Parts: sequence; structure tokens; C-alpha cells
Amino acid sequence: MTLRPKKPSESKVVTTHFVMPDDTNHLGYLLGGRLLHWMDLVAAIVSQKHSERVTVTVAVDNVEFNRPIGLGDIVTIEGFVTRAFNTSMEVFIDVWAENVPKGNRYHATSAFYTFVAIDSAGKPIPVCPVEPETDREKYLFETAVLRREFRLFMAGRINIESLDKLVERLREVRNTLSNF
Amino acid sequence: MTLRPKKPSESKVVTTHFVMPDDTNHLGYLLGGRLLHWMDLVAAIVSQKHSERVTVTVAVDNVEFNRPIGLGDIVTIEGFVTRAFNTSMEVFIDVWAENVPKGNRYHATSAFYTFVAIDSAGKPIPVCPVEPETDREKYLFETAVLRREFRLFMAGRINIESLDKLVERLREVRNTLSNF
Amino acid sequence: MTLRPKKPSESKVVTTHFVMPDDTNHLGYLLGGRLLHWMDLVAAIVSQKHSERVTVTVAVDNVEFNRPIGLGDIVTIEGFVTRAFNTSMEVFIDVWAENVPKGNRYHATSAFYTFVAIDSAGKPIPVCPVEPETDREKYLFETAVLRREFRLFMAGRINIESLDKLVERLREVRNTLSNF
Amino acid sequence: MTLRPKKPSESKVVTTHFVMPDDTNHLGYLLGGRLLHWMDLVAAIVSQKHSERVTVTVAVDNVEFNRPIGLGDIVTIEGFVTRAFNTSMEVFIDVWAENVPKGNRYHATSAFYTFVAIDSAGKPIPVCPVEPETDREKYLFETAVLRREFRLFMAGRINIESLDKLVERLREVRNTLSNF
Amino acid sequence: MTLRPKKPSESKVVTTHFVMPDDTNHLGYLLGGRLLHWMDLVAAIVSQKHSERVTVTVAVDNVEFNRPIGLGDIVTIEGFVTRAFNTSMEVFIDVWAENVPKGNRYHATSAFYTFVAIDSAGKPIPVCPVEPETDREKYLFETAVLRREFRLFMAGRINIESLDKLVERLREVRNTLSNF
Amino acid sequence: MTLRPKKPSESKVVTTHFVMPDDTNHLGYLLGGRLLHWMDLVAAIVSQKHSERVTVTVAVDNVEFNRPIGLGDIVTIEGFVTRAFNTSMEVFIDVWAENVPKGNRYHATSAFYTFVAIDSAGKPIPVCPVEPETDREKYLFETAVLRREFRLFMAGRINIESLDKLVERLREVRNTLSNF
Repeated sequence: MTLRPKKPSESKVVTTHFVMPDDTNHLGYLLGGRLLHWMDLVAAIVSQKHSERVTVTVAVDNVEFNRPIGLGDIVTIEGFVTRAFNTSMEVFIDVWAENVPKGNRYHATSAFYTFVAIDSAGKPIPVCPVEPETDREKYLFETAVLRREFRLFMAGRINIESLDKLVERLREVRNTLSNF
Repeated sequence: MTLRPKKPSESKVVTTHFVMPDDTNHLGYLLGGRLLHWMDLVAAIVSQKHSERVTVTVAVDNVEFNRPIGLGDIVTIEGFVTRAFNTSMEVFIDVWAENVPKGNRYHATSAFYTFVAIDSAGKPIPVCPVEPETDREKYLFETAVLRREFRLFMAGRINIESLDKLVERLREVRNTLSNF
Repeated sequence: MTLRPKKPSESKVVTTHFVMPDDTNHLGYLLGGRLLHWMDLVAAIVSQKHSERVTVTVAVDNVEFNRPIGLGDIVTIEGFVTRAFNTSMEVFIDVWAENVPKGNRYHATSAFYTFVAIDSAGKPIPVCPVEPETDREKYLFETAVLRREFRLFMAGRINIESLDKLVERLREVRNTLSNF
Repeated sequence: MTLRPKKPSESKVVTTHFVMPDDTNHLGYLLGGRLLHWMDLVAAIVSQKHSERVTVTVAVDNVEFNRPIGLGDIVTIEGFVTRAFNTSMEVFIDVWAENVPKGNRYHATSAFYTFVAIDSAGKPIPVCPVEPETDREKYLFETAVLRREFRLFMAGRINIESLDKLVERLREVRNTLSNF
Repeated sequence: MTLRPKKPSESKVVTTHFVMPDDTNHLGYLLGGRLLHWMDLVAAIVSQKHSERVTVTVAVDNVEFNRPIGLGDIVTIEGFVTRAFNTSMEVFIDVWAENVPKGNRYHATSAFYTFVAIDSAGKPIPVCPVEPETDREKYLFETAVLRREFRLFMAGRINIESLDKLVERLREVRNTLSNF
Repeated sequence: MTLRPKKPSESKVVTTHFVMPDDTNHLGYLLGGRLLHWMDLVAAIVSQKHSERVTVTVAVDNVEFNRPIGLGDIVTIEGFVTRAFNTSMEVFIDVWAENVPKGNRYHATSAFYTFVAIDSAGKPIPVCPVEPETDREKYLFETAVLRREFRLFMAGRINIESLDKLVERLREVRNTLSNF
């Protein structure tokens, strides 16, 4: 059976949060783990919309928090599937924060999550491919292979033969986020 | 002022969770984001104990979830500071899961979190150095420099001059977790 | 001081929820109150974005839940300001639910919330006017006056003189939601 | 089978909440949605006690929040079934707030919720009638028919023939709460 | 300054909970700790109403859970101040559980909590005396002295001189709950 | 079938909490009930690890809170099974609090919880015996019989014949905690 390809826009999910007291530490900054949790929930819904299956997180790539987010700020999280690899999907998550009364809105962080679709017995099951439309989606689609190879290398599952190839992937992974 | 060095055992924190219904997806597997949140809370307490300051998450390295954790399982999370770099600290987090009635206990995941200590105005402030004792602590202390360089390279903040050095760091980062 | 008018698209907020076990009753249907809470949070962010102030809920119009929403469904809530009246704003909230594996998506409910912007002493403060763009926004903008009069009448704050006017408003309020 | 009538006192439920930090906005006022959620939970228990069945919210009539409720205030919510209509029940909810150290107690809001009793397959199922005892219960019982007709009219499900009848219902609905 | 005595009915608080999935263990029984938390919240409100001050828990006497409470059951918790001792108050908490569809209602547990009223600096501050009205309130008022002495003895703060007195207190404490 | 004895160290559980805003009252002190809930969760995990069964709380002995715990403090809770009695287990829970920036760490409270292991039908089921190793464990093991007799006496389930025996148990129970 061939699965119909889906566009990233079909799996796109947006969510918005108010930073409440229990989301913050003593000085009123959003806890990094709470944000990782919110990002993962968006990625879970994204991957479920793409695969039409229950999905589980299998990996998160490096996440850097550029700037502390404050109590009462509004956090907007957006995500979509960049590419599918048989049973797994890479989900791009982008986070913006905004202090409305102060009028400043800034990019807080971005991340790549990997999810696997599972059947009711908990076994991985194939998902439909991704058909990118915009330039940004196409770029993320193409570079997803490099990020995946790098991820597998980091997890000790594959070897990358030549130094040249390894460094190429490395620079690619590094450049991905700064292009947006 | 010179800050007194602290041992990793002085910042060590352990916590234990029951996986409850709201922590799981439809098939009863622990949500990855909830686990990342629990891990971050442990790392926050660890870094506060080491620095005796309020701390904020600045980065999380790649995290891979080896095996789904089920509803009702017991999750044990342990962490300690591996090394301090002026105002930042690297925290090692190790996670074990256990299904008690079934009698199986397994390693769920490991991760490196980076925290920065801040003063009451939210500005970074120096933290005391780490004095490792055990072989494992010494190994994590020594390799922390490589992981940090790699992290800065990935964040686009530094360049690593030679291919050889870059690959050395890369292999080191990859090997760190498999040694434990 | 005249406040710059804002478009409804400037205050638009979207949020997405997974229905988790603690959100449901015994038969696995989403609790109405939980949904009202989620809707109010969206409306609070919408009104804060429009007014750039802290805001408080002052009223919710009739809400009807057309169809029970199940455990594991995805709920998407969208809102924007339809019109401002000096210190108060009417916020339109629209809710869609989706059972992804079953492939059905349906309109769950709509509602009008009223918020007031307050200053740091808790006193009402003027907000900027709304400048509608689309046909739907224009229709909601125009009919907002009728809904407001009806709301004030229901709260016992004004009398509407003639039977004809009263019934006109009544039919208007009734028709508002069915036009979308 | 005829179901035994029940008195409103048999379905009466009281609950009391402390307003905690996560229940409030930035200026320390209780979020309207949190209160709607608490009111709905009371109404759900009330309707379950009356019907001895699982119940689901089908509607909430206009709710107006007269006065902001502050952090640390005590909120008392009381409810009972006013009347049953085959498978549905109207629940009256009354809310009082109190700032104990300041010694002031005030009426915060009132609302009418409509619930339907369902069987284990999720289908509506008949509930027992209501037998009012006190004057207040009798008044709410009698006027429930008017509120219900008005509700059905607002939902576009029935037409009310004459202008006179429509206005009569309208004024009745408006007057209901101010009589208490 | 003499504080006006208050009746137990003036501090009486009732609250009602639905047992939700996250309140229960794997077999669907309410967690004892969750119930202790709910009971403490009621006792905190009771003691605040009596003292018109912020209060803190200082002790809980033996609590026995007679019968497991199930998922979906309704738990009603009632409390009032039995007696005041300068800055501290003894609060009696009574818990009933009910499975509505099954039609059974049973006594779940009772407990005595001790709270202290504090001023804004966190220092204990005198509270008004209790004036019992009903026979039950009078009995609890009179025996409160014995329970308090026993509590202080158990905490190692006082010695009770004669065997006879000690045993008298002991039997009294034991008998208190079985009289209701 | 004879169950293999287990050491207290095999059931030992540690957990660590940050005191967050929703855990505290108006003056920023940890709610006693929240702490009782955290302690019960640790005791539940401890008893599950010992029995390898689902367990339910059946009793908590007197708990005294020596000193208020503040917002942002770190609370460490430790527990292990002291002794098993056929289907029930006594769990010792010890709580320490720490204000890291202020550098003070203090003993907050201790308590004895009693849990029963149940099978999938909810019926009590035998658990393995305890084999104490350290002096502290041996002391708690030996005195567990006295605490249990006292508990049964207090619950009105047994009579203790002579005054001498009663007082002996009483003093024993009182002394247990002050020995640590």
C-alpha cells in the first residue's frame, strides 16, 4: 500500500501559552523544562496529524534557549513535519515570545523533534511521505537527511566513512536554524 | 574572591516519579516532553545546589529516548554538576525506569543540560569550580570541555579551526554516554 | 490621546489541546468547564494583545456544546477581537475538534466573551478601536453593538424602549453564530 | 417506568476554593475561565446526584462577573437542579467570594448550566423529575420552562410565535437572577 | 484586647470533589495523599475563617482510611474549628464518599488537624475562642484539651505525671471518633 | 509459598521537590497537605517496590510540622519499609528542607505510613518480610510491633490488657522519632 504524500501545511499546529507563576523559577523566568514539555506536546500533535496514528517521541536535537522568557509573557509555538523516514518523522518546532505591554516580540528558540508512529500494539508503523511546498519547507526537507544521519551517528548507530562527509553534515546541521 | 570548589556529590539530586494517566499518551506511554520537564527540574535543583544561586536553563544536548516508558512505571532521575565554566554549569542527568510488578528495570535515557547562575537582577554571576572524585566524575569533568566547544560550535558562536579537532570533539561527544 | 485602531488579525490567537484523561468525565467526554477555561484563556490573550494591557473577563454569552468531544481528540481554539467599546472588548471564540485516527473534524462550539482592560490599580482603561477587514470581521463588528445592548439589557443595566427594537436585537444575536 | 421525583435539596452540592497563584492573572485577579470550570464541576456533580448517571454539559447561559475576585480569596460555589426535562436538567449555580482578613463577603455571580444524562453508550437517557420545596426552588422550577424555550430559540431550534410571548420569556429570563 | 468568641458554625466549610484519573493509583483507588491534601485545604480555610488570619498546618493526628475510594466517586469533606488554644486551633475534618450510580454512600475517614495563625512576619498570633452550640460541638470542645495534651506528650513537649491521667487521655482520644 | 525477605535498602526511595507558588499559602509557606501528599507518593512507591504489588494507604500516624518551609526551598523526602505484617507494610518517611541561597538545611518532619498490598481484584495479598541491616533499621523493625499495636488500639480494633503494657507502647511510640 502506498501512502498519500502530505504537505507540511497539513500537519501544521500552533499553540499559545501565558507564562503563569508555576511555570517560572524564583526570579520569574520560564523553566526550560516546561517549555520543552510544551514544544513536545505541539510536536506530538503535529506528528499525529501527519501520520494519523498515535506517536511517541524518540529524540530531541540540541536546544538552546537564547533569552529568558518572563512571567506573564505570551509564548507562541508552531510546528510541522519536515520529512518522514518510513516509521519516523522529523518535526520542526519554532518558538516566539512576546511581552505585550512592553511591546517586544522575539524569537525564543527552535528545535527538531523526532517521533515514531506506532500501532495499537506499540509497534512502529509506516507513515506517509512529506511533499514540501515553500522554499523554507523544501530546504528543511532536503537537509533532514543530513540531520538524521548525524543523529544516528551521535546515537552510535552508524559510522560516517570519510571526514569530509562527517564535517559536511555537521556544518549543515549547524547552519539549518540560522537560515531562518 | 575565589569560590571554594565543590564535589559532584555535593550537588547530587535524586527524584522518583510514578507515571500517572495525565503523563501518558493514548497508548499509555510517557510523553517525552513530560520526561524532559522532570529532567530539567532535577537539573535546576542540581545547578542551584552547586551555585547557591537561582539558575536558568540555557541548553539541552541531544536526547534520545531508547524505549517507551509505560503508565504506572517508576522513573528515577539522578543528576550532578560535571563541570563549571565561569557562570555556566554542565549537568549530567541519568534516567532509569522500572516496572515493579513485572520486575524489569532499564536505562531510559541520559542527557547534558547547561544552566547559568544569575543574580537578583537576572545577570550571570560566577559559580564555584567542580572537583571530581570518582573515575566517572573525572571522565565527565575532562570531556566537558569538548562537549562545550562542540555546543558553542553548533550554536554558531565559535569556529573550530582544523578538521581534526572538530572530529575529535565530535567523536568524544558521541562516546561520552556509551561509556556509562 | 487617540489610540491607533487595530485589525482583528493583529489580536488573533490560536491554540491547540490534546484531550487528556483529567480533562474528561467517566465516559471519556471532555468536561464542558475545562473547555470554557481553555476558551477564556485564549480570549484573555486575544484581549491583552489588542489592548496591550492586563484584562479581566466580565461576561460570557450563551454557550452551547453541540457534540461531545472525546478523550485523545485534538481541540483547536481560535479567537480575535470583534469590536471595542471604550474600556471593554468583545472577543469571538471558535472551537473545532478532531479525531485524527478516525479522520473526522467538526465544529464544536462558538462563543462571545467580554473583557475589560485595567491599569495597575485595577481600574478600567480605554482600549484602541477595531478596524475590521474581511466580510466576516465586518459583520461581527457591526452586529457587536446589538449583542452588547442585549447583554446590558439582560444584565438589567438598560431598558430597550420598543418591542420592535428588542426583538430585532434578539433575532440578531440568534443569527450571529449560524451565519458562520 | 416512572422515576421517583427528587427534591432540589437532594442534588445540592457545595464546594469551596482558595484562589491560588495559578488561578489568577498578572494583577492577581481570578481568571474567569477557571471560575467557569469550577462552576461546571459543581454542576456536573449536582446533575450526577440528581440523575444517578454520567452527565455532560450541553449549555451555559449568559454569565456576568460582577466584581473581580482576588488572590487568596475564598470562593464558595453552590448548586442544585431546578428542573428536569426528560433527559436534560437545568442546574442553578451561585457563587460567593470572601476576603477573610478584610472581612468582606460578596455575591460574585450566578449561572444556569444545562446537563444531559447519558447511558454507557453515550446516549441520552431519561432522568427523574424535580419536586421543589422552598419558594425560591418553586420560582426557579416554574421559570425554568421559559428559560428553556428561550435557550432553544437562541440555539435556532424553535420559533416563538408571537412577539408578546417572546418578550415575556425574555423579561422573565432577565428577571430571574435579580430576584435572589 | 479580648477577641469575640466564634461558633463552630461560623468556621464551617464544605467541599466536594470528583475522583479523577490523576487522583488514583493503577487499580483506580484514590491516593491517600491526595485525600490528605484535600482535607488539609479544607482545614486551612476553616482555620482562616475562624482566625481571620493566614494559618499554617502544625500537626495532623492519626488518620485511618477505612475503605478505598474509587475513580469517579464523589468525596465530600466538611470541617470546623473545635477549640482554640491561644495561637493554635484544632480543626475536625469529616470525609464521606459516594458512588452515585451504585447508590452507596459511606463514611471514609475523620481527622484532627492543628493550625496556627500567623501575622505578616510569620509570627504566631492569638485567635478568638470557640463557643460550641450543639452537643457534638460541645463534646469535641471539651475533649480537645485531652487530645492536645496527648499531642504535646507525643511530641515530647510535656510529661503527663500519673499513669492514670495518661491512660485517661489515651482512651479519650481513642473514643472521640467512634462517638460520631 | 514463602516470600523472599527484602532489605529496607531494596525499597528505599528518594525524591526532591522545589516549592512552587501553587504549593504555598499567602505568606509563602508550603501547605501541609501538599507535603503530606508528596510523602504519601513516596510511601506508595516504597511499598510497591517492597511488595511488587499495587498498594493503598491505610493509615498515617501523627505528623507534626516543626517549622514552616518556604517558597523556593528544596524538599527532600526519603522512605523505606520498616516491617511487614502479612498484607500490610509500615513505611518510614523522613523529610528535610533546604534554603540553598541562605545555606540552611533542617529536618522538617518524619512520619509512619501504613500501606496494604492488593491483588487485581482489590483484595489484600501477603507481602514479603523485611530483613533489617543497619542499627537504625533494626530499631525501627523491632519497635514496629509496638507502633502497630498502638495503632490498632487507637482504631478501636484491639484492647491492651494492662496499664503497664499500654504505657510501654505509648512511650515507645513517642520515643521512636526522637532517636533519629
